[in-house]
Amino acid sequence: MTSTLSPDASTPSGVPDGGVSPAFSVPEGFASRHIGPTSEAAETMLHTLGHRSLADLVDAAVPDSIRQARPLQLPAALSEAEALEALRGYARRNTVKTQMIGQGFYGTHTPQVILRNVLENPAWYTAYTPYQPEISQGRLEALLNFQTMVADLTGLDIANASLLDEASAVAEAILLMRRANKKKASGTIVLDADTFPQTREVVTGRAEALGIDVQIINLAAEGLPSGELCGVVVQQPGDSGAVVDHTALISEAKERGAMVTVAADLLALTLITPPGELGADIAVGSSQRFGVPLFFGGPHAAYMAVRSGLQRQLPGRLVGVSHDAEGRPAYRLALQTREQHIRREKATSNICTAQALLAVAASMYGVYHGPEGLRRIAERVHGHARTLAAGLQAGRRRLVSESFFDTVQVRLDLDAEAEHVLFAAEEAGINLRRVDETTVGISVDETTTAAHVDAVLRAFGAPTETSEGTPADSGDSSDSAAAGHGTAFPEALRRTSEFMTHPIFHEVRSETQMMRYLRKLADRDLALDRTMIPLGSCTMKLNAATEMEAISWPEFAGIHPYAPAEQTAGWRVLIEDLEAKLTAVTGYAAVSIQPNAGSQGEYAGLLAIRQYHLAQGDADRDICLIPASAHGTNASSAVLAGLQVAVVATAEDGTIEMSDLQAKIAQHPDRIAAIMLTYPSTHGVYEADVREVCRTVHEAGGQVYVDGANLNALVGLAEPGEFGGDVSHLNLHKTFCIPHGGGGPGVGPVAVAEHLKPFLPSTSVGGAGGNGAGTDAASRGGAPVTSTPYGSAGVLPISWAYLAMMGAEGLTSATAHALLSANYISRRLADHFPTLYTGEGDLVAHECILDLRELTKRSGITAEDVCKRLIDYGFHAPTLAFPVNGTLMVEPTESEDLAEIDRFIEAMIAIRAEIQQVIDGEVEAADAPLRHAPHPAAVVASDDWDRAYSRRQGAFPVPGVLQDKYFPPVSRIDGAHGDRNLVCSCPPPEAFEIS
Amino acid sequence: MTSTLSPDASTPSGVPDGGVSPAFSVPEGFASRHIGPTSEAAETMLHTLGHRSLADLVDAAVPDSIRQARPLQLPAALSEAEALEALRGYARRNTVKTQMIGQGFYGTHTPQVILRNVLENPAWYTAYTPYQPEISQGRLEALLNFQTMVADLTGLDIANASLLDEASAVAEAILLMRRANKKKASGTIVLDADTFPQTREVVTGRAEALGIDVQIINLAAEGLPSGELCGVVVQQPGDSGAVVDHTALISEAKERGAMVTVAADLLALTLITPPGELGADIAVGSSQRFGVPLFFGGPHAAYMAVRSGLQRQLPGRLVGVSHDAEGRPAYRLALQTREQHIRREKATSNICTAQALLAVAASMYGVYHGPEGLRRIAERVHGHARTLAAGLQAGRRRLVSESFFDTVQVRLDLDAEAEHVLFAAEEAGINLRRVDETTVGISVDETTTAAHVDAVLRAFGAPTETSEGTPADSGDSSDSAAAGHGTAFPEALRRTSEFMTHPIFHEVRSETQMMRYLRKLADRDLALDRTMIPLGSCTMKLNAATEMEAISWPEFAGIHPYAPAEQTAGWRVLIEDLEAKLTAVTGYAAVSIQPNAGSQGEYAGLLAIRQYHLAQGDADRDICLIPASAHGTNASSAVLAGLQVAVVATAEDGTIEMSDLQAKIAQHPDRIAAIMLTYPSTHGVYEADVREVCRTVHEAGGQVYVDGANLNALVGLAEPGEFGGDVSHLNLHKTFCIPHGGGGPGVGPVAVAEHLKPFLPSTSVGGAGGNGAGTDAASRGGAPVTSTPYGSAGVLPISWAYLAMMGAEGLTSATAHALLSANYISRRLADHFPTLYTGEGDLVAHECILDLRELTKRSGITAEDVCKRLIDYGFHAPTLAFPVNGTLMVEPTESEDLAEIDRFIEAMIAIRAEIQQVIDGEVEAADAPLRHAPHPAAVVASDDWDRAYSRRQGAFPVPGVLQDKYFPPVSRIDGAHGDRNLVCSCPPPEAFEIS
Repeated sequence: MTSTLSPDASTPSGVPDGGVSPAFSVPEGFASRHIGPTSEAAETMLHTLGHRSLADLVDAAVPDSIRQARPLQLPAALSEAEALEALRGYARRNTVKTQMIGQGFYGTHTPQVILRNVLENPAWYTAYTPYQPEISQGRLEALLNFQTMVADLTGLDIANASLLDEASAVAEAILLMRRANKKKASGTIVLDADTFPQTREVVTGRAEALGIDVQIINLAAEGLPSGELCGVVVQQPGDSGAVVDHTALISEAKERGAMVTVAADLLALTLITPPGELGADIAVGSSQRFGVPLFFGGPHAAYMAVRSGLQRQLPGRLVGVSHDAEGRPAYRLALQTREQHIRREKATSNICTAQALLAVAASMYGVYHGPEGLRRIAERVHGHARTLAAGLQAGRRRLVSESFFDTVQVRLDLDAEAEHVLFAAEEAGINLRRVDETTVGISVDETTTAAHVDAVLRAFGAPTETSEGTPADSGDSSDSAAAGHGTAFPEALRRTSEFMTHPIFHEVRSETQMMRYLRKLADRDLALDRTMIPLGSCTMKLNAATEMEAISWPEFAGIHPYAPAEQTAGWRVLIEDLEAKLTAVTGYAAVSIQPNAGSQGEYAGLLAIRQYHLAQGDADRDICLIPASAHGTNASSAVLAGLQVAVVATAEDGTIEMSDLQAKIAQHPDRIAAIMLTYPSTHGVYEADVREVCRTVHEAGGQVYVDGANLNALVGLAEPGEFGGDVSHLNLHKTFCIPHGGGGPGVGPVAVAEHLKPFLPSTSVGGAGGNGAGTDAASRGGAPVTSTPYGSAGVLPISWAYLAMMGAEGLTSATAHALLSANYISRRLADHFPTLYTGEGDLVAHECILDLRELTKRSGITAEDVCKRLIDYGFHAPTLAFPVNGTLMVEPTESEDLAEIDRFIEAMIAIRAEIQQVIDGEVEAADAPLRHAPHPAAVVASDDWDRAYSRRQGAFPVPGVLQDKYFPPVSRIDGAHGDRNLVCSCPPPEAFEIS
Repeated sequence: MTSTLSPDASTPSGVPDGGVSPAFSVPEGFASRHIGPTSEAAETMLHTLGHRSLADLVDAAVPDSIRQARPLQLPAALSEAEALEALRGYARRNTVKTQMIGQGFYGTHTPQVILRNVLENPAWYTAYTPYQPEISQGRLEALLNFQTMVADLTGLDIANASLLDEASAVAEAILLMRRANKKKASGTIVLDADTFPQTREVVTGRAEALGIDVQIINLAAEGLPSGELCGVVVQQPGDSGAVVDHTALISEAKERGAMVTVAADLLALTLITPPGELGADIAVGSSQRFGVPLFFGGPHAAYMAVRSGLQRQLPGRLVGVSHDAEGRPAYRLALQTREQHIRREKATSNICTAQALLAVAASMYGVYHGPEGLRRIAERVHGHARTLAAGLQAGRRRLVSESFFDTVQVRLDLDAEAEHVLFAAEEAGINLRRVDETTVGISVDETTTAAHVDAVLRAFGAPTETSEGTPADSGDSSDSAAAGHGTAFPEALRRTSEFMTHPIFHEVRSETQMMRYLRKLADRDLALDRTMIPLGSCTMKLNAATEMEAISWPEFAGIHPYAPAEQTAGWRVLIEDLEAKLTAVTGYAAVSIQPNAGSQGEYAGLLAIRQYHLAQGDADRDICLIPASAHGTNASSAVLAGLQVAVVATAEDGTIEMSDLQAKIAQHPDRIAAIMLTYPSTHGVYEADVREVCRTVHEAGGQVYVDGANLNALVGLAEPGEFGGDVSHLNLHKTFCIPHGGGGPGVGPVAVAEHLKPFLPSTSVGGAGGNGAGTDAASRGGAPVTSTPYGSAGVLPISWAYLAMMGAEGLTSATAHALLSANYISRRLADHFPTLYTGEGDLVAHECILDLRELTKRSGITAEDVCKRLIDYGFHAPTLAFPVNGTLMVEPTESEDLAEIDRFIEAMIAIRAEIQQVIDGEVEAADAPLRHAPHPAAVVASDDWDRAYSRRQGAFPVPGVLQDKYFPPVSRIDGAHGDRNLVCSCPPPEAFEIS
């Protein structure tokens, strides 16, 4: 494994290998750009804390018992230029072909204006999930556009703001059907055999874990089975490419009391009758082909749309329309299902993260093309597919289905024949799909040209429309003529209904308009490019430009997830190296980066534990102990992995009650499967007795799951795999610099000890590509948790670059500085907002919980008021009401410099003074700027002003905001109104009219 | 030539070659994204104008007499994806080596945070020159940082905001010395022989044209010549790399009444005593190595700094500090020398454009590294150079100079030996410089590693510090150790003075800080990404993301201008194809893209005319006729080309007075060298008798120069080369989509008829690279006008992509839409602001001049008031007071959509109503919102409000700006105060303190 730790660039000699300065000082190079405080600033901060040095502080804060004995074993840090060169080296080892494999992943033209101004623009990609709606109106509008587009295309009433990937979206749909169809919940779920193999694999794994009866049936041939039915899932077009009229099937299913889900291709739905019009309850699928690069499998935004009545069952996030204090329409997340909002008892889905950034990109693709543009693309795709089919038939090839949209499968007589076709196509620069020994699939997409069609026909030895060797054209610009008219699917399925009729899908046609629309939306929001986002438990650190640079290179972005292994060597070596680096950082034996969100990592980790117990013959071990202070997600993940939850009490100081732990263990002899710990705890402190907890659970035969949410407090100081963990999930979008993207993408790798390695998720999902991916890959026998072998592969170069450029010394220094900054804030604010929990030496870990409950009692001013008021000071709010109601959890991360931290402290102190005015009776809470916050420009510069405070106090409470002031576009938003009156698609423009 | 018109991508067959729809409708593909109005919008606009079709409008507006007979002959348009693929094809034909050629161009690490957030961010690159300072405070601050940094590093008092390139900057310094040193103006200018060859070539050409006595003398060997001296130019380090103590030389020169210019390397100045401290009057040079890519020679920001007393002589732009209406410090351009500000009679320099975007990048590099970082880089560079020198000496190689900073030249015994060394280095991936037959130069830079040093030593057969084949390291991150201590230049030259002491050079060290600083500055400004910039004569059209994409690819950006020709094939083929396309568009016989600004194109074009006359034996032809309405630049360019200016009167309607033309010709028989026309004229109309004017001048033996500033009204409709022009310059930063970059880069190609081809600027400048560049190159015998063969090559892919993606039909349609939009605005505003000049059919060309003089007379409200008030409506102002005082010239370009155009019209109508209130006596002019505009947030939301109008009228005059309002960071700026009290470096932070 060691060899894979060396990147392509040779390791400098003469530099101590992974040597870490015991002083935790910032090494030269990239680390000094990533870490905010300079050495002078760090001294100032240490002085405030009364510690002589960073080492002194770390020694005082972090229990000896967990400190790792030796420094991280990582290669010497690379400079930014070296990291880019190393990434170019990986990129060169990938081969970019024309991807006609299909199977849920298609070539697409990402409009450069969207690539540059969204995917490469920190204003978009560094934004946080829009829980603070007043500073998130831009991305909320973009996501509402996504929802409207999906609802329209699927012909259903309401769509969510994206899911993780198509396969897990189908799994979520099955869970939804079981929840919603209560009367038939014990019935069978039928999954049509003509669904993507990756869908079948992921669903099967999920179903097995939960004990759901899922039957995979060839519905076209066999029809619905007898017996009680809970739900039916079909795919349109099918895995085979077949476009089938499911009308009768859906009717029968519904008559029998079953619900129906259709996994549908959004582009096909511009031409084909949508699921909603056929009577389906749910539609799911991927929006990848709406301008989002292949990314070797992800991240892409999956979608889910449902008929009216099911909206409150929707997993994931949903943007809704409410109004603000001025009564104007304003967007917000409706029916929030954030980790801390997931109620343990009602765990249904464990999904927190969405694929917001990718949903934004897909929605903008829809805005840019409009319905007529999408239809034109679909017609061109269909036209090429028909040309292809006609040519193949002229060449006497047997098609698997003569009804199709974009995908044509050909059944050949001999293995060798299929081999030959695939080889010939590859020689012509085209990847086709090997469906099975004798079946070859061809999927046409937006990027397909007549020349590609000809090349494919030639690979099959079929006649082409033009003479040999002369491509009919070289580009898409002139292809529309080639498409012709007519369809290759049943006339009854031709779509007649309108879609995307909202003006937003008709207004933006020029690049100038799109550029300005993107700028306008971005300007409404606060992201890391304008302010610290001190969100406890979210680790909003720098997403460096060098880290982001490689993800849009064609050699990374243009690779199909099921491309032949020899074309993806660069990707796989990079991933193997990243997994090795993460293994080194966590102290485990192996890491799988497949899970594409923290929730999926948890699920994969718990599944590994469950499978391990089963393999040991311990089928009874089905209880997962979860401390009361845990994230809500923990419990729901446990349920999804087939475990039962038992809650362990936490003490006043946030630590686990050892006595209750022992009692719970005693209560369930030989049934303890695992305990899920968060370390440092969600209370923001290092618990000294974590080893003891781990030992106790191990002695009871249980496994220890250490939630990696707070790993930013551990890297280089302590290894979960060393101090007692058997498995952890990490959040690359927290500790390892993948940007939050306004609510995704996330990557949640699962790290395991040696004995759990065989139960890591298999990388052979989808039937291709994954095999041979690495030495460990073959031994990974767990159920896959996502559609593709490497989940959100596309963003992994970000974390790779971070680890490569920081090196052991930089990473460890970063952790020390994260502690320093959190403790500095806690100390500086101690007299104003006391910190709720502290650990050894009266210190916190990398975040601190400010307790406002007493102040609220005395003043009526709530923690939420403070969050909204911080907007007037130009800040994004800290985490609100988690893990304790009435508190704010502040996490500055190592990336914030002292000036920004001080600016935050000064804002908080000024706010505290404003609270004091209420306490002192100088102003009523209801009249205070705190309660009226935030203040849009139109409010503070309006002609009427009858507030109890001055305009200046409202808008410019500190001089620092006088010049470069951020104004929120709306006043405080009424959340409850929005939930009562659920509107989740774009309101008409008149709604926004201002007199 | 035809073959070069075909790009690498094969031309689609079956598509009419260059076929143009007579309807001028927008073709599918990129053109439909570039052109703003949809076909429905165009119909609406045509309806307003009373024309049935675009063709009808064009026929009515454009005189038959100039219309071109056949459509543009260009290959079929490429899609965006195809254009990128074609550009990738060119890129692959370049070879990126480690560039150790030096000679004014050095490898550098562009910080990715600057690359992404400045060079790849439309908020920065689409900005216009900051003539409207209230909406330009961000880039003005960045440029002021540049000036401060340059002044500090050079040890002089004041620096300008950049010049075009180092060689032309030296030429400007020479002109400055002649202007400032009036008593010795007739004396000799001495140019040290140890200056860069490109400097000597450009200066020689300029001097010859102007008849200045410039002597190139080896000052180290020969000392100053006897006789009257006007000025002396030395270079530090010299072309040979030699670092020489010029103290005595400078003293002697000054004693003899001469002025002294030092061309100095900014990085070297962190270690070496700066020119100012040695007594120099002027320093010039390039800031390229401060983070700006090599770009195959440009664009890069050259600089000029002068001692106190010379500031009013500075060419180019100068940012100064003044204050706004609130009395707060505010930045503005001081001593403006814009084209229309250049006074014909006082023509000294013809420079208008700067290299603003590159100066911003270089200044941010300085901000990010700070003085200590720059010094560290310089020390590492110097350390590697010393290691190299020591190794060479140990290998018994003869150094040209043992005193050096970064460049070491080696004199070998035999040609073959030099060949061998160059070959061996190239084999090792390194380009060295072939100075002459037996001299090889090596320049160390920021990117040089110990491994490079070793490789170079091995190429010389010299001993290395490490064993063969094992590089000492692979990166710069660990190189500091290698640098060691000590210097290889005279101890007396060791810099002891501080520099860059202003806080801005000490505050920004983390990437997060830099990202936020760049965002903060960008947010202060209005650029094309937020609003139309309807600047007449500036053609602020879309700069599409696809056009911009390729410029930062290493295969384009990493090429040295003097790299061996076989490594630059991709660049040269691209440039040749671009020149061919421009030739096709203009109707000339050849184009040179060397001039790196419009002013340089004018100069090159007039020089070609002058040389042509000389070659014909017509030495007396030295009079250039210039219409009274011409750009000021025209006259100054003529002077620089050695011509005398005679002004031709223009009639009331803006056309040339034929009688005066004939009179002027008669007055100077056989002395007419040329006439300079702008077509359409600066009055914004097509003159019907342009052919007649051309014929008249031709008959008088003169040449016709058609200024291409307004080419956006001609492309596809008329060809200057066809209707009478012998030469034109184009502005790729206007008509051909190179972004304005906040005031540069520009590219000003010169296009000529067949007989002038031999006089195009030579591409063999700098002694390398240019030869063999193309079939035409060898025949170009004119003096080079810039430092490198292809000027601002780095941005040429932008124009190439534009031309390739638009095709003949798209380009012609764009022109028609530019006419449509200008006429639509003119017509819609006719009752509010009459258009001053119209041509045939009462129509304008691509812009219209709104006449406010009558309104000003009646109300006291000026055109400037209207410009400032437009900011409150969210608009950038039109062109003010050019070509006629008291007017606004509006040019919407084809890229603005109808909604944005209507928004502008509505704003203008609302402003007209505000003027009416003044006329009607409802409000005094002095109290009107027009006079107090623009309104920052801090003003309209202040507690005190005693204005005659409401806050809402001040800040939100139309409902459309209520939500996404742009607030300027300052009130109206007092320009006169700033000119009276010239402050041109960063003021201390306290100056900005607000109580």
